[in-house]
Amino acid sequence: MRFQLEGRVIFFATNNVGKFIEAKEVFREHKIAVGMLRAKGLEVQSDSLEEIAKTSAIDALGRCHLPLIVEDAGLFIEALNGFPGPYAAHAYKTIGNKGILKLMENERNRKARFESAVAYHSAQLETPICFRGQVTGEITREERKGSNATGFGFDPIFKPINSNKTFAEMSTTEKNRRSHRANALNTFAEWYKKPQET
Amino acid sequence: MRFQLEGRVIFFATNNVGKFIEAKEVFREHKIAVGMLRAKGLEVQSDSLEEIAKTSAIDALGRCHLPLIVEDAGLFIEALNGFPGPYAAHAYKTIGNKGILKLMENERNRKARFESAVAYHSAQLETPICFRGQVTGEITREERKGSNATGFGFDPIFKPINSNKTFAEMSTTEKNRRSHRANALNTFAEWYKKPQET
Repeated sequence: MRFQLEGRVIFFATNNVGKFIEAKEVFREHKIAVGMLRAKGLEVQSDSLEEIAKTSAIDALGRCHLPLIVEDAGLFIEALNGFPGPYAAHAYKTIGNKGILKLMENERNRKARFESAVAYHSAQLETPICFRGQVTGEITREERKGSNATGFGFDPIFKPINSNKTFAEMSTTEKNRRSHRANALNTFAEWYKKPQET
Repeated sequence: MRFQLEGRVIFFATNNVGKFIEAKEVFREHKIAVGMLRAKGLEVQSDSLEEIAKTSAIDALGRCHLPLIVEDAGLFIEALNGFPGPYAAHAYKTIGNKGILKLMENERNRKARFESAVAYHSAQLETPICFRGQVTGEITREERKGSNATGFGFDPIFKPINSNKTFAEMSTTEKNRRSHRANALNTFAEWYKKPQET
């Protein structure tokens, strides 16, 4: 039996298994093999997801020397002036979904968006290349999770536009049809599949 | 008339004028001259104030080549699992004091602490040296500012232990007798005044 590698290979530097599972499914559609690199190190403080992702990609490439992507995401709630923004992970760890719902009590404007920046870097590049994705939606009035939900973070309180379900009530496949992350990863994958000129 | 420089000189890399005013008063007591360097650039995302301050100090020294300090502070609220922590500036810009008070509604445990890390770096050092300070206290039930208050950020909702006033109701001199920042800066200044062996 021969081992045949069809298509391309990419490494995803992340410590978040949930993100990796979503990415794996996106890349399967594109016949891109993906490996998880637990090598996401340095993250800068910045209001720009692109800057955060690019700096992390430079740092990860310096340590791993493999063609890789880093993804950074943020949740921006209109009525809270963009809070929690790029610091969504820290807000999730501390105040969690309950904290966000408390801040949004009696708030009529529920508009929010998730943004994602995927930075690709390899030894052939001078600086990383960035791909963006976003999804608009609203903050629900309570947490809603599905029974076999795979979502994480603020997924239980975010309902994308034109959907009755929160991200946490969707399967990975359903979430990937709409999500900011799948959006950015698909844009990257389309580009990555093409013969590269470098 | 001759210009005579008594004591030492230090540069404070910060974009926050409020912080600089506090530092200037602390250093005056120690006869250390201080200049404001608007050169605070890179800040990493980390739960460690020390790591944030040190990384910023390395970055600033690389650009300015002057003996300098960088200060990073955080507010850690016990009932909110340490929120907003090192990301206090972003939380202040978005949800502000009102957001914190909302999160703390009906919360009996009001305990909180401010922490400060001052990183000193110069061309003579291999890595920055860090000095810490902290103050415990509580989150008030409402914002309280003095009429000629000089405080900033979360000062109006933080009352240090054994005080009837919030930081925002104190003069710079009063705040400097208690604050996390003055605490760290004084420790640094004591060390900096001594003849250095390097």
